[in-house]
Amino acid sequence: MYKVGFVGLGIMGLPMAKNILKAGYEITVYDNNDYKIKKMVDVGAKGARSSMEVAKNSDVIITMLPNSPHVEAAIFGENGLAEGLSRGKAVIDMSSISPVASKEFYSKLKEKGVDFLDAPVSGGEPGAIEGTIAVMVGGDKPVFDKYYDLLMTMAASVTYVGEAGSGNIAKLANQMIVAANISAMSEAYVFAKKAGADPKVVFEAIRGGLAGSRVMEQKSPKIFDKDYEPGFRIELHIKDLQNALDTAHNDNISIPIAASAMEILQACKVDGQEKKDHSAIVKFFEKINNIEV
Amino acid sequence: MYKVGFVGLGIMGLPMAKNILKAGYEITVYDNNDYKIKKMVDVGAKGARSSMEVAKNSDVIITMLPNSPHVEAAIFGENGLAEGLSRGKAVIDMSSISPVASKEFYSKLKEKGVDFLDAPVSGGEPGAIEGTIAVMVGGDKPVFDKYYDLLMTMAASVTYVGEAGSGNIAKLANQMIVAANISAMSEAYVFAKKAGADPKVVFEAIRGGLAGSRVMEQKSPKIFDKDYEPGFRIELHIKDLQNALDTAHNDNISIPIAASAMEILQACKVDGQEKKDHSAIVKFFEKINNIEV
Repeated sequence: MYKVGFVGLGIMGLPMAKNILKAGYEITVYDNNDYKIKKMVDVGAKGARSSMEVAKNSDVIITMLPNSPHVEAAIFGENGLAEGLSRGKAVIDMSSISPVASKEFYSKLKEKGVDFLDAPVSGGEPGAIEGTIAVMVGGDKPVFDKYYDLLMTMAASVTYVGEAGSGNIAKLANQMIVAANISAMSEAYVFAKKAGADPKVVFEAIRGGLAGSRVMEQKSPKIFDKDYEPGFRIELHIKDLQNALDTAHNDNISIPIAASAMEILQACKVDGQEKKDHSAIVKFFEKINNIEV
Repeated sequence: MYKVGFVGLGIMGLPMAKNILKAGYEITVYDNNDYKIKKMVDVGAKGARSSMEVAKNSDVIITMLPNSPHVEAAIFGENGLAEGLSRGKAVIDMSSISPVASKEFYSKLKEKGVDFLDAPVSGGEPGAIEGTIAVMVGGDKPVFDKYYDLLMTMAASVTYVGEAGSGNIAKLANQMIVAANISAMSEAYVFAKKAGADPKVVFEAIRGGLAGSRVMEQKSPKIFDKDYEPGFRIELHIKDLQNALDTAHNDNISIPIAASAMEILQACKVDGQEKKDHSAIVKFFEKINNIEV
C-alpha cells in the first residue's frame, strides 16, 4: 500500500483526508494552518512542516486548494511538492481550477517523471464528510487505474473523463450549467409570483416535466424557505465561472450564457451575498424587480 | 355524462380529441381544415361547421389552438363559441397562450355565466397520442374539480395551479427554464469540445450531480446524434418566450434570462432552424464559435 500525502485541509480537504485515513492508508498532511494539521495528527496522521516534506514522505500526494495559483505555489513554489518529488511518484490535484493550469502542471511534472491527475469533485462539504463526493478525473488512464481505489475511499463515484485537464473541463461545464439553471429557476420564481401564481405550486406542477432538474429539487426549497446558508458559496461559483471564461477565451471561444450568469453572481457579490449559497441568486431577480425579499 | 366539444384538431388537438372519444364521451369537433374534421367523424365524432355550432351542441368545449389571437377569435369572433354558449357551460382552453389573455377570457365569459379554465399542456405529440400529457390548470377550483375526469382522459397528470391564468403562468415558467437550460447545456457542450474533452463523457460524468436535469437526459442525445427533428419546434418556443416577455412587461418586471434565450432562439430562426427541435439551439453556439456542425 502506497503512502499518501495530503496538502490543503480546508472545509473539503479535512474530511476527505480523514476518509483516506479511515480506509487504512498511512497519511502525511500539511496545511498553512497548524490547527488543521493538529486535528489530523490527533486522529493518526503524520504532520509535516511543508509541502516538500509531504512529498518526501509520500508516494502519491493529493492537493485540495482554493484555485490555480494556490496549487501552483503548493507544487512549484518554495518548499513546494516539486522539491520532494521523485520519479514514479504522483500528484492528484482535487481542487477545482482552470483546466489550462491542469494541463500545464501535468506537462511540467511529466518532465520529472512524476504523474499528475486533475480530479476535481462535486458534492460539497456533506459529500466530503460522508465520502459520497463525485470525482471527475483527467490524465493518463493507467495512472487513473492505479489510484482509483484511493480516490474511491472519499467518493461515491470516480469517473475517468479523458486526457489531462478533462476533470476540470467537466467540473467547469457542470458549474456553467448549474449557474444558468439556478438563474433561470430564480427568474421563473419571480415571474410566477408577480404574475399572481404561487411559485411553489407552479414548481410542483412542472417538476415532473422537461423543466425538472436537480437544481429544482435541491435549490428551490432553499428559495421557498429563504434559507441561503451554504451549501455552495457564491464566491466559489464566481471563481469557477471566471476559470470557465478564462479557459474559453484561451481556446478562442465565446460563452455568453456563462458570462451572463457570472455577472448575476457578481451583482450578488456587490450586494454583499458572496458568502451565501448560490440559491441566493434569486435575490438578484427580486432586487431588479422591486419584490420584497 | 356531459357532451364535449373540441375546437382545433392540430398535431396536439387531434390525438387529444381521440382520447376523449375513446373514453366514451360524445364529442363534437371543429377545425378550419375539413380533412381534420373528417378524420374525427370517421372514428365516431360529430362534425360541426363552426365553433358556434360546437358550443350549441356541447356542455364543455375544449380549445387547442396556436396562440392567444386564435383562441380569442375561436371564442369571441364571428361564428365563435360565445354565440353558442349559455349559462352553466364551460370553455377549457388547453392552448399555450398568454396568461394575461387567459385572465381576460375568464372575466368576459364569467359575465355570461360561462366557466373558463386555462389548461395548457406539456408532453408534446407523443404525450398527446399516448394520453400522457401533463396539464396545468388555472381557474375556479370547483370548475377544475368538475372537469378533472375529462382532462384525465388525455393526461398522465392534471394539476390545479391556482386562479385564472395560473395554468399558463406555470407553462411559461416551464418554457423559460427549459430554454435557458438547453442553452446552458449546449454552451457547455461546445465549451467541453473546444477545451479538448469528449462532451458525451463529460455529461456522463456530471449527469448524476447538480447539473443533472430532464433536459440533459432527453435533449443531449439529440445533440450527440445531430438529430434535430422535433420534438418541440423552435418557432413554438419563440412564441412561448414572447408570451413570457409580454406577461412580464405587462406586470412591470424584467426577465433578462428569458430575453437572452429568446434572442438565441431568434438567431436560430434567422439561420432557418425554426422548424427544428429546440435542441438545435446548440447550432447557435457552434456557429458563433466556428465549430463544424
